[in-house]
Amino acid sequence: MTTARRRRRTREQATSTTFPMAPQPRHPGILYTSATDENVERIHQKSMQILSEVGIAFLDDEAQAILRANGVKVVDDIAYFDPAHVEELIARAPSKFTLRARDPQKSIVVGEDYIAFSPVAGPPFTYDLDRGRRESTMADFVNFLKLTHMTPFLHFGGGIISEPNDIPVPERHLDVAYAQAKYIDRSHMGSSISRDAANDAIHVARLVHGDAFDDGDPRLMIIVNVSSPRRLDERMLGSLIENARAGQVIVITPFILSGAMGPVSIAGTLAQLNAEALAGLAFVQMVNPGCPVIYGSFQAVIDLQSGAPVFGAPESQLSALVSIQLARRYGLPFRGSGMYTSSKVPDAQSAYESAMAMLPGLFSGTNYVLHAAGWLEAGLTAGYEKFILDSELLGMFHKYLSGIDFSEEAFAMDSIREVEPGGHHLGTAHTMANFRDAFYRAEIFDYNSAEQWLEEGGKDAVVRANTKFKQMLKAYELPALDPGIEEAIREYIERRRIDIQNNPQDAY
Amino acid sequence: MTTARRRRRTREQATSTTFPMAPQPRHPGILYTSATDENVERIHQKSMQILSEVGIAFLDDEAQAILRANGVKVVDDIAYFDPAHVEELIARAPSKFTLRARDPQKSIVVGEDYIAFSPVAGPPFTYDLDRGRRESTMADFVNFLKLTHMTPFLHFGGGIISEPNDIPVPERHLDVAYAQAKYIDRSHMGSSISRDAANDAIHVARLVHGDAFDDGDPRLMIIVNVSSPRRLDERMLGSLIENARAGQVIVITPFILSGAMGPVSIAGTLAQLNAEALAGLAFVQMVNPGCPVIYGSFQAVIDLQSGAPVFGAPESQLSALVSIQLARRYGLPFRGSGMYTSSKVPDAQSAYESAMAMLPGLFSGTNYVLHAAGWLEAGLTAGYEKFILDSELLGMFHKYLSGIDFSEEAFAMDSIREVEPGGHHLGTAHTMANFRDAFYRAEIFDYNSAEQWLEEGGKDAVVRANTKFKQMLKAYELPALDPGIEEAIREYIERRRIDIQNNPQDAY
Repeated sequence: MTTARRRRRTREQATSTTFPMAPQPRHPGILYTSATDENVERIHQKSMQILSEVGIAFLDDEAQAILRANGVKVVDDIAYFDPAHVEELIARAPSKFTLRARDPQKSIVVGEDYIAFSPVAGPPFTYDLDRGRRESTMADFVNFLKLTHMTPFLHFGGGIISEPNDIPVPERHLDVAYAQAKYIDRSHMGSSISRDAANDAIHVARLVHGDAFDDGDPRLMIIVNVSSPRRLDERMLGSLIENARAGQVIVITPFILSGAMGPVSIAGTLAQLNAEALAGLAFVQMVNPGCPVIYGSFQAVIDLQSGAPVFGAPESQLSALVSIQLARRYGLPFRGSGMYTSSKVPDAQSAYESAMAMLPGLFSGTNYVLHAAGWLEAGLTAGYEKFILDSELLGMFHKYLSGIDFSEEAFAMDSIREVEPGGHHLGTAHTMANFRDAFYRAEIFDYNSAEQWLEEGGKDAVVRANTKFKQMLKAYELPALDPGIEEAIREYIERRRIDIQNNPQDAY
Repeated sequence: MTTARRRRRTREQATSTTFPMAPQPRHPGILYTSATDENVERIHQKSMQILSEVGIAFLDDEAQAILRANGVKVVDDIAYFDPAHVEELIARAPSKFTLRARDPQKSIVVGEDYIAFSPVAGPPFTYDLDRGRRESTMADFVNFLKLTHMTPFLHFGGGIISEPNDIPVPERHLDVAYAQAKYIDRSHMGSSISRDAANDAIHVARLVHGDAFDDGDPRLMIIVNVSSPRRLDERMLGSLIENARAGQVIVITPFILSGAMGPVSIAGTLAQLNAEALAGLAFVQMVNPGCPVIYGSFQAVIDLQSGAPVFGAPESQLSALVSIQLARRYGLPFRGSGMYTSSKVPDAQSAYESAMAMLPGLFSGTNYVLHAAGWLEAGLTAGYEKFILDSELLGMFHKYLSGIDFSEEAFAMDSIREVEPGGHHLGTAHTMANFRDAFYRAEIFDYNSAEQWLEEGGKDAVVRANTKFKQMLKAYELPALDPGIEEAIREYIERRRIDIQNNPQDAY
């Protein structure tokens, strides 16, 4: 055993398992596909036409140099790709990889039949029943990290679960990186807001993981959004290049509101989405061949009455289903739809839309689900109760995806023989032996009679979720973190904070 | 054209299309399957073992005579079936049939890749925001019939959508049959509460449809629940026999709470469910070979804390998915899970559970969905707002299942070429030509900004649904019904009401 390995193992053994993570669910059986292979192929062909004839803008000098060095024609910031070259580049990416966490029991596999859930990322507001909707703060971000740490059904620590608006923007990523190291021991996002921020997050991860950081497996993931239509900007490209060089996971996600950032039609949107995703994914492979990537796709429609984005709409599900088929065609892990809703509060609309957005991916082969808990208001708000309610569904999905035990014992033929027609199985030997573990029990959902439910206050699901998140925050315990490492991180981020305060233009 | 045909066509032309029905959705692509073919076959074999060795009780003299006449061994009320004979009988049932409605535009196809949605059936209570939970009345039943008539996404008029508790039980089915004839022109349930009630419903349907009633296509459907474990009672068998003789649709649905009416394990529950369903289905084919049937399956779990049934649980979805595979193995239409919930109110729990119960069938090939709108409180309550909210989802499913337009026009390549990187598609010729019909717009769900939503009262989805159901009831119009037919129905039911009042034991 090398010194590095030994050191890593010691560090890993020291981490807490007070709040364990559930094993990742995996897709069983035959997956649902909505489009024919011929139509998937037509989308591919149209995308190749877009890549070669219409092109994708890369608004970064270094990126253009990399493209040119790889033989890509770049004219007026627009890169024109050779289809065969794109396919050859994409083929370099792994179909599956391991994303290592500080707690090795929380390392996850991404790709093939594996599924991983991650909390919402990016909302500038938070909502809870007591305080309503308000700008979120570092205290909220830390609360959501704690809830994530305690939720067994989230396999990834996420990114900025809610924006710490009370920290100045140029140095915010430093406090985010520190909070991620301190409050969770799952793998999590790096930074994609700038080149320097990306490197700061990588530096902190190196401090956390030590030499093991360079063992070939990624620790961080970043989401690179294409600024659709057909444009990757300097910030995204800068952080893409830095993270790809460090071998971290790059998720390329074009985000298209059909009718605004892409054609109003689903087929046209899909062709553009696929072209944009392939451009980003191929570029990553130019920077670092074999770098782990995830094929992302995010399509929503516009409400033609208000102009607002609509989440949980049927068109989005159709897009998502076909995007999964495209990712599978390229042999890449797929990032699917989360618990999206347009609703401002965790009401029935919110739950219907969230399930409507989330479930199709579970039947069709999604691998990584960002925004799987807490999303409200078109992604502008992180909801505390919504986080708890969504997590309840994630627990159900785990049970659901674990399939059925078809052992001889499970067929319980002796019980079936023993119980008379019209009798009951409540006291059979088989029931007595198995009832404790037979069913998944949702904690937040109420199964009492109407009378008993009223007697206990007639609380709806959101009120129960409100109670639960407060109980969880009280019960939270910090995961183990070597005090020397924590000190090193603090030193680093305070030094960088001073740099940034002195030279704000460098940071952001 | 025969006189009967001409008469039928005249009658059909006279019906209203003020509130049209949406075309039935159909399953596209490759369906999701969770169990391997080998495991499906093992369930089949275990069921055959139950049918031949353990047997199913048929608690009706005529039914036993029919069984014996078909060579089935019956000992102490229990029928023991020969597996090959069961398969041969099942093979007589059609894989697809047409259920004719009074309005011919509302006739539906059941089976193969067709899907049909039907409202909730049977709740003794109703709920709305204004009046809370209370015993439902004939006025509620009529209201739900009106809402069904006006909802394009329900393809079937359903049964007793909410119980008219203010009508004496023995004559209730008469008023139900009259209300179905008067307020809706979709196909609907007959009666399965007794032999006489079944015949009354058939008689009323004959009055409505005239000679066409005997043209070989069914007009009515009944649900025959097996009194699990392994028992069909006299009432169910009586109405089964009468409806099967009249060639109407029989849905055989064993209803098992795992751990109570069947083994606590899913595999054991499935073996028993399948045996019970096959016994009923085979029996229908003895009564009337070729009679249209639907394979039903209803599994729920018990909450081990309260003993109450749990709806929307992951185990139920696993059961439902495998039951669909079994129905497909036998070439039979499948009745799948509806919008089930244990919640007492239309809150987030209700919506999550409903979507969780409903969506899997849409990915795996369900054909007929009872309880697709309005279900609350484990089926004990029909909710007005829930009905509206569920219907919104049904509309989304219609769009969802209609698939994607992959025409050249839909790829919008000219638009993609025309719009600069970072530009927008809002004003392109393609957007202008297509935006009106591009997206399904949910009426009840809110897509406004948080600010605008608050300005408009910050109403949650249930409050909006409350407003909508009242607006709908005001806008309702009666479908056309020949006054002579209506008079004949009234005469019949009043005559039968007097019979029943004089001889209550005959009716119920």
